[in-house]
Amino acid sequence: MNTSEFRRRGKEMVDYVADYMEGIEGRQVYPDVEPGYLRPLIPDSAPQEPDTFEDIINDIEKIIMPGVTHWHSPYFFAYFPTASSYPAMLADMLCGAIGCIGFSWAASPACTELETVMMDWLGKMLELPKAFLTENAGEGGGVIQGSASEATLVALLAARTKAIHRLQAASPELTQAAIMEKLVAYSSDQAHSSVERAGLIGGVKLKAIPSDGNFAMRASALQEALERDRAAGLIPFFVVATLGTTTCCSFDNLLEVGPICNKEDMWLHVDAAYAGSAFICPEFRHLLNGVEFADSFNFNPHKWLLVNFDCSAMWVKKRSDLTGAFRLDPTYLKHSHQDSGLITDYRHWQIPLGRRFRSLKMWFVFRMYGVKGLQAYIRKHVQLSHEFESLVLQDPRFEICAEVTLGLVCFRLKGSNKVNEALLQRINSAKKIHLVPCHLRDKFVLRFAICSRTVESAHVQRAWEHIKELAADVLRAERE
Amino acid sequence: MNTSEFRRRGKEMVDYVADYMEGIEGRQVYPDVEPGYLRPLIPDSAPQEPDTFEDIINDIEKIIMPGVTHWHSPYFFAYFPTASSYPAMLADMLCGAIGCIGFSWAASPACTELETVMMDWLGKMLELPKAFLTENAGEGGGVIQGSASEATLVALLAARTKAIHRLQAASPELTQAAIMEKLVAYSSDQAHSSVERAGLIGGVKLKAIPSDGNFAMRASALQEALERDRAAGLIPFFVVATLGTTTCCSFDNLLEVGPICNKEDMWLHVDAAYAGSAFICPEFRHLLNGVEFADSFNFNPHKWLLVNFDCSAMWVKKRSDLTGAFRLDPTYLKHSHQDSGLITDYRHWQIPLGRRFRSLKMWFVFRMYGVKGLQAYIRKHVQLSHEFESLVLQDPRFEICAEVTLGLVCFRLKGSNKVNEALLQRINSAKKIHLVPCHLRDKFVLRFAICSRTVESAHVQRAWEHIKELAADVLRAERE
Repeated sequence: MNTSEFRRRGKEMVDYVADYMEGIEGRQVYPDVEPGYLRPLIPDSAPQEPDTFEDIINDIEKIIMPGVTHWHSPYFFAYFPTASSYPAMLADMLCGAIGCIGFSWAASPACTELETVMMDWLGKMLELPKAFLTENAGEGGGVIQGSASEATLVALLAARTKAIHRLQAASPELTQAAIMEKLVAYSSDQAHSSVERAGLIGGVKLKAIPSDGNFAMRASALQEALERDRAAGLIPFFVVATLGTTTCCSFDNLLEVGPICNKEDMWLHVDAAYAGSAFICPEFRHLLNGVEFADSFNFNPHKWLLVNFDCSAMWVKKRSDLTGAFRLDPTYLKHSHQDSGLITDYRHWQIPLGRRFRSLKMWFVFRMYGVKGLQAYIRKHVQLSHEFESLVLQDPRFEICAEVTLGLVCFRLKGSNKVNEALLQRINSAKKIHLVPCHLRDKFVLRFAICSRTVESAHVQRAWEHIKELAADVLRAERE
Repeated sequence: MNTSEFRRRGKEMVDYVADYMEGIEGRQVYPDVEPGYLRPLIPDSAPQEPDTFEDIINDIEKIIMPGVTHWHSPYFFAYFPTASSYPAMLADMLCGAIGCIGFSWAASPACTELETVMMDWLGKMLELPKAFLTENAGEGGGVIQGSASEATLVALLAARTKAIHRLQAASPELTQAAIMEKLVAYSSDQAHSSVERAGLIGGVKLKAIPSDGNFAMRASALQEALERDRAAGLIPFFVVATLGTTTCCSFDNLLEVGPICNKEDMWLHVDAAYAGSAFICPEFRHLLNGVEFADSFNFNPHKWLLVNFDCSAMWVKKRSDLTGAFRLDPTYLKHSHQDSGLITDYRHWQIPLGRRFRSLKMWFVFRMYGVKGLQAYIRKHVQLSHEFESLVLQDPRFEICAEVTLGLVCFRLKGSNKVNEALLQRINSAKKIHLVPCHLRDKFVLRFAICSRTVESAHVQRAWEHIKELAADVLRAERE
C-alpha cells in the first residue's frame, strides 16, 4: 500500500470508525458466538499473494464484529470503564506514524519530555503533593506504565530491592534469598488479583489484611498482622492500599495506614486504578487524602479519563528507587546525555524496554477537553450511578451492598446467592445489557458500573426496567 | 469532539500522517534539541477550557517534531528496525475504536480467537514445529506479548514455578526461598540486557556463558558452567538462547545447546527478537533449526515484519506451564465458558491484565502484503546490508567485525577504539544519518542496521559516502 492509497483507505477507516461509534447502540452488547467460532471462518494460513483492502474491510463485519463484546456500548455496565475518546484516537494515529521507541531520552527526546511534563500536568490536576512532580527538580516524578498490574509489580520490585539493600547494609552476611524468604507484603482482602500476582512474580509473601465492614483496610487489622509477623521473624516491607477496589469501589483508610507504613519503614503503594480519575474534581479529592504518606501512587487514565488504553499513570517520590531496581546499561543503549542528570531514560522505570509515544494521547485529551470538560465527564458518570442507586433503593425486593461513592453500584436481590446467580445469568443471556458479578464476603453481588462515554440517563433507566423484568421472572420461577 | 468533527479531523490527521511519511526523508534524522527543551514551550498546567484542534495540530510541528528522532527515516540506521506499515496503522485505528480489553475470552471473543489463529498463521510461516501451534488441539500455543523483555520474563517465571514444583514434589521440606537461592539461569554473554533483568526481577542467579569466536554460545562452554554450578550445589533450570544478538546479530548454536537443555531438564527459551522475521524466508529458515528443543520461542514482528509496535510473538509447547505460573481467578473475571477447555484466557499468559486487540495488525499486514510480499521485504533489507558490507570491504581503512547474516553490519576503522569513538561522534553530530555503537569484546564497533521501510540502495550509498568523508576527517585529525 503506497501513500496515496493510504490517504484514501485511511479516510475510509475514519468513516468506518465514526459509523461504528455512531451505531454502537444498535449492536447487541455481548456477542452470540460460541468458543471456537472464528477459526472456521478464515483460511488456515496466511495468503501467499496480497488480499485487497476491500476483502479485509468486508471481513470485519463478517468475521470480527460478530465476536466483539462492545465495551463502548451505552448498555455495557461490566468490569470498569475503559476509556475511549476521539482526541485520544487522533493522537494514537500520530503516535503510530512517528513510531518511535522511546526507551531513552536520545531515542526520541520529545517522547520522553512530553511524558514528563504531561505527568506533571496530571499530577497537578489531582493536587498530588509536590514531592511526586518533576518540575521542582526534586527526586520524584511520573511515568506512563502499560497497566496498574505493572505499576504494582514495579513498586513491589523497587521496595524489595530497597529492603534487601537496607538489610544487607546492616547485616552483610545475609544473602538475598535469606532476606526474600522473610519479606512480607500486605494488601486488603479486597485488593485486585494483580497484587497477589505481583507477590508471586516477586517471590515474596503477600498477606491479605481482613477489611472492615465497609470493605476498607484499617490501622488495627494491619497493626495486628505486623505484630504477629514480626514476632514470627518475618520482615514487613510493602503495603498496597487500594482507593476504589474492583469489587465494590471501597477505599482503604490511607490516613490510618499511611503513618504506620512510614513509621515501620514499609513502602506504601497506593493503587487507585479506577477511582483516581475522579480526584480531579475538588469534591472527590478528599478521597486521596493520605497520599502524602505514599512512596508510589498509580491510577489509570485509560479507565476513566478518556485516554484510550494503554495509559497507566504512576508517580514515585524518589525515582532513584525505581531505577535502582532495574538499571543496566549496555553500550548500544548509552548516549552522550545520559549522565547529565537532566534527562530521563524511562527504560529504567518499567518492565519492558520498548515504549510508544503514549503521552501524545494525554496531551490531546487534556487540551481538547480542558480540565473542566474532564470534570464534567466524571460528574456525569457519578450522577448516573446515584440515579441507578436510587432506582434500586425504591424497589424493596433489592438491596444496595456497598456505599456508592463513584460510578459503581453493587446490588442484589434480597435472598439467596442462587437467586442472584440466576438473575445475572438471565441478564447476560438476554444480552441487552452486560454486567459482571463479584463476591462481597459470602454474598454473590451484581456490579453495575457506569462505563460508556455516551451512556445517558435513558440507558440507565432502560437497563433498570430490563433488570426488574428479569428479576420478576427469576422470583416467579423460584416460587414455582 | 463529536462524531462529525472526528470525521473531519480524522481525515486531516490521515493526511498529516501521509505527508509526514512522504516527507520524512527531508527531515533531519536526529534532532537538534538539548535536554529540557520542551518544558518551556508549553504551559505548566493543563488548560481549564478546551483548546481547539487547530491549536494542537500547529503545536505538533512547533513543539513535538523538533524533538523527534525519526525512526522511519531512510537515514536511520540505529538500534534495530521498528516496524511501520500502512496496513498496521489502519488496523490500529480499528483497534482503538473497538477498544476492548481482551483479558479473557468473554471480554471479547474475537480479540482472543483472532490472536490464537494469527499466531498459528505466523507459526506456519516460520515452519515452527507443530507442538507450538494451537490448531492441532495439542498443548502448545501462541500469545502476543508487549515486548521480548516481557516474553523472556514470562518464560523465566514459568520455568521457575515448574522447577520449584518439581523440587518440592521430590523434597517436600524445601521452602520456595531455599530453592530460589540455588536456581541458576544461563544466557550467552552476548544476550540482551533484558535477560539479565528478567533474572533480577525473578530473584534468581543469571550467569553469562562466554561466547565463541563468532559470538555464539556453544555446548562446551555451557556444559562447563553446568558442571561447575552443579558441583557447587546450584540447580540449573533455565537457558536463554539468542538467535540474532543485539550487538552483532550472532546466533547461539541451538543444535548444540538444545539437547543439553532437554537432557538436563532445563527450560530452553529462544529469543529471536530481531532475526525471527527472516525465518519466513526458506533460505533463512535453517537459522531456526533446533527450535524443536525449545520450551518457548519469541520474536518481534514489531521489529522487522511490518507490524507496528507493540507485537511480540511468543509460543510455548505447553501452555499450562505459563498459566500455572500466574493463574488467579477472582469472581469478577470468571465467566461461564472458562472451564470448557475450549477457550483461552490470555490474562494467564502475561504480566499485565489488560490487553489491546493487537492481532488485527497481524491480520491486516499478513493479508495486505501476503507471505510473498513480506519475504520480498526481508530480502531487500538483507540485500542492502550486504551492499553496505561490500562497500566497507572495498575500503582498506575499514574492517567488518562480525559475519553479516541479516540486516546488520558491524564495522569499524582499523585502529584504536578512540578513533572509532571519534568517528561515531562525528557521524551523530552531523545528523545526516544516525547510528549506535556496540562493544564486541574490547572493541568499540559501529552498527549499521537497515531499518526503514523505505530505505533504498541510494540511501545506503549516500550514507557510506558520508561515513567515508567523516572517517577521512577523523584520520586527518588523528595524524595532526
